[in-house]
Amino acid sequence: MTTDQNYVTATYLVHGHFDFYKKAQEIAIGLTVGSWTDLPNAKKEQMIPHLGKVIEVKVLNHNSDEIPQALLMIGYPLVNMNPDIPSILTTVFGKLSMDGQIKLIDLHIPDSLLSQFPGPRFGIDGIRRLLGVHDRPLLMSIFKQCIGLPINELEKEYQNQIDGQVDLIKDDEIFFRDDYAPVLKRIATFEKQNQHHKETTGKKVLYAVNLTGPVTQLLEKAKHLSDAGASCLLLNVAPYGFDILHRIAADPDVNIPIMAHPAFTGSFYPSPYYGLSAPLLLGKLMRLSGADIVLFPSPYGSVAMPKDEALNLAKQLKYPNKIHRPAFPTPSAGIHPGLVPTLYRDFGDHFIVNAGGGIHGHPQGTSAGGKAFTDAIQAVVSGRTLAEAAEDSAELRSAINKWGAL
Amino acid sequence: MTTDQNYVTATYLVHGHFDFYKKAQEIAIGLTVGSWTDLPNAKKEQMIPHLGKVIEVKVLNHNSDEIPQALLMIGYPLVNMNPDIPSILTTVFGKLSMDGQIKLIDLHIPDSLLSQFPGPRFGIDGIRRLLGVHDRPLLMSIFKQCIGLPINELEKEYQNQIDGQVDLIKDDEIFFRDDYAPVLKRIATFEKQNQHHKETTGKKVLYAVNLTGPVTQLLEKAKHLSDAGASCLLLNVAPYGFDILHRIAADPDVNIPIMAHPAFTGSFYPSPYYGLSAPLLLGKLMRLSGADIVLFPSPYGSVAMPKDEALNLAKQLKYPNKIHRPAFPTPSAGIHPGLVPTLYRDFGDHFIVNAGGGIHGHPQGTSAGGKAFTDAIQAVVSGRTLAEAAEDSAELRSAINKWGAL
Repeated sequence: MTTDQNYVTATYLVHGHFDFYKKAQEIAIGLTVGSWTDLPNAKKEQMIPHLGKVIEVKVLNHNSDEIPQALLMIGYPLVNMNPDIPSILTTVFGKLSMDGQIKLIDLHIPDSLLSQFPGPRFGIDGIRRLLGVHDRPLLMSIFKQCIGLPINELEKEYQNQIDGQVDLIKDDEIFFRDDYAPVLKRIATFEKQNQHHKETTGKKVLYAVNLTGPVTQLLEKAKHLSDAGASCLLLNVAPYGFDILHRIAADPDVNIPIMAHPAFTGSFYPSPYYGLSAPLLLGKLMRLSGADIVLFPSPYGSVAMPKDEALNLAKQLKYPNKIHRPAFPTPSAGIHPGLVPTLYRDFGDHFIVNAGGGIHGHPQGTSAGGKAFTDAIQAVVSGRTLAEAAEDSAELRSAINKWGAL
Repeated sequence: MTTDQNYVTATYLVHGHFDFYKKAQEIAIGLTVGSWTDLPNAKKEQMIPHLGKVIEVKVLNHNSDEIPQALLMIGYPLVNMNPDIPSILTTVFGKLSMDGQIKLIDLHIPDSLLSQFPGPRFGIDGIRRLLGVHDRPLLMSIFKQCIGLPINELEKEYQNQIDGQVDLIKDDEIFFRDDYAPVLKRIATFEKQNQHHKETTGKKVLYAVNLTGPVTQLLEKAKHLSDAGASCLLLNVAPYGFDILHRIAADPDVNIPIMAHPAFTGSFYPSPYYGLSAPLLLGKLMRLSGADIVLFPSPYGSVAMPKDEALNLAKQLKYPNKIHRPAFPTPSAGIHPGLVPTLYRDFGDHFIVNAGGGIHGHPQGTSAGGKAFTDAIQAVVSGRTLAEAAEDSAELRSAINKWGAL
């Protein structure tokens, strides 16, 4: 890939019956200086630093019967953009997003611009350090239900999850109206439980509390929750916009990790013809904007992200990069203990096993559900099969009996 | 449509080979209280106010060879949501957006919730009052180019547009890096030109200045630009998120209209299988969030929004509603004077004719381009044909010769 440090390079997948080379030229000019051929020469000289350029046009299915498709790579001068996601997205996919069958597949952002984004404050190493766990994938559980429950019921649920030896526990992402269990009350209650658990067992837990409210107040609220003792923030990034993630992650007063929920992102990534690719949206953009942990649909559920996309997404979160720390991939939905070997094979050492129904639905309940997972995780990192591990773990046996093992 | 004042009712278009009734049930439970059938009765009583309900399932192509499709209408209790777009979208289309081929077609929001959104501060009547124009569609022109031009060149361009008798002039939406013509300088310069134009001809003009920067500073910046004499704000709503539009529109210190640009929304609406419908996204959500003027792709360009969608979108912006003022539809892209009768037939009395190339590309230049449009608009509202009007207008004749007339 030919790139240039003075350009953001966007790669588009385009479907249509037209001249792809001409289309690429039109994009490069139309989305930067507006017009070119009819400009006087003096004007051209003045505009050259702002002019987009066609970097590559790759026709994908020449001579086939299908609708013609091509990858267009267009460079947009850095000098046209501010160092923020709204500016970049408006420039490379503002008007263009509405211009027929065109999908934004990737963005190459040069280091000079990338370094103006915060990236994860903690990242994989930082989260591991907070938890004191360095030798295995992490385990997270989700509240089975949050809405409508009083704090004392949530407290019991929280304790059951802690007893299952999970590393992280998150609010439900739809938990906005918390009248019966207000956010500060939850933080006080659950962080006290975390503290007690640490004192009695030595094991640390992070609680990801849902950050909600007007976007104009989210940064102050994040600081406030951080000051109040929250150990992690959950953010519905797409509904609020990526820029608020950027601003929270960049603020030194928010000294806790940020977990990005993929809510609403299915509006963008699944179509082959429109929108943004999942690895770009949930991988690259989440990481550079500062998510420490990123949830996305696993490739194993009944309705799932295609496996190559999910792996590419995780790669975007983790690949070594001079500028930003790696973020924790968290393939979610449909996860049960029998999938742990598959997850480990597919996602490697660094990912978070995230379970809701696969923990709470365990025949012996939530704590046993957590135990089944921790035993499965312990098995894979010690090179044992699940069948072997199940001989020593009634909880894992039970889980495999219920859900099977891939 | 059966609705209920205690629920937000979402209508989804779903494609797939499954039991649509079961699917609807799963959504109503899964996206609210999480589980139902296995709950003890006391718990059920506690949860009923928070439980979603299936309002209607309409199977669309029973017995056809195509992939089965259905409309599902699900009610979500108001008590589960905050009065903001991120909360509503996360609730009704958070996880669900990633759950196969499902598109959010419409939202019915009861008055009690709707009234907690600002809606347009000015709306159609307010914009007309600001301009003193009550008897015809308005005319807007777009700078041919902004990036890279010094203020004195933009000043000339602005004057050419004013001389064309346009009502509104907007920045290019990709105008982020304004080093050569900083935003306060533009406001000072162009508003002075507006003032002079008003004093000499009696005609008022609104200049929509692009609001850019960190989302955490946009509200303050909007106030600042308003204080500095700006007459209108341009906002790329989708890249920043709908909630910031809501917050700016709701703030009494921002006492100027807001023009919503549709940049990036092509990532959401064009697929028949995924995302949000254009009338919901660019119609209903824009209006309730507070856009006074909404741009969207016209149904006439080479790549365009389907006509029924564009008309339905405009209807969402304009239909009488006890809570919010109507907003100005602005069908854009590919507009030339020959299209004015068609626009008028399709969009009625209240819309904005928005032209870029159709003004600047006029054979006699920008001012003549504006004149051709104003003559065309005058013709349609006086019941004359374009051919008749062209007899008295060299500019309109020229435009029709170049672009034709529909």
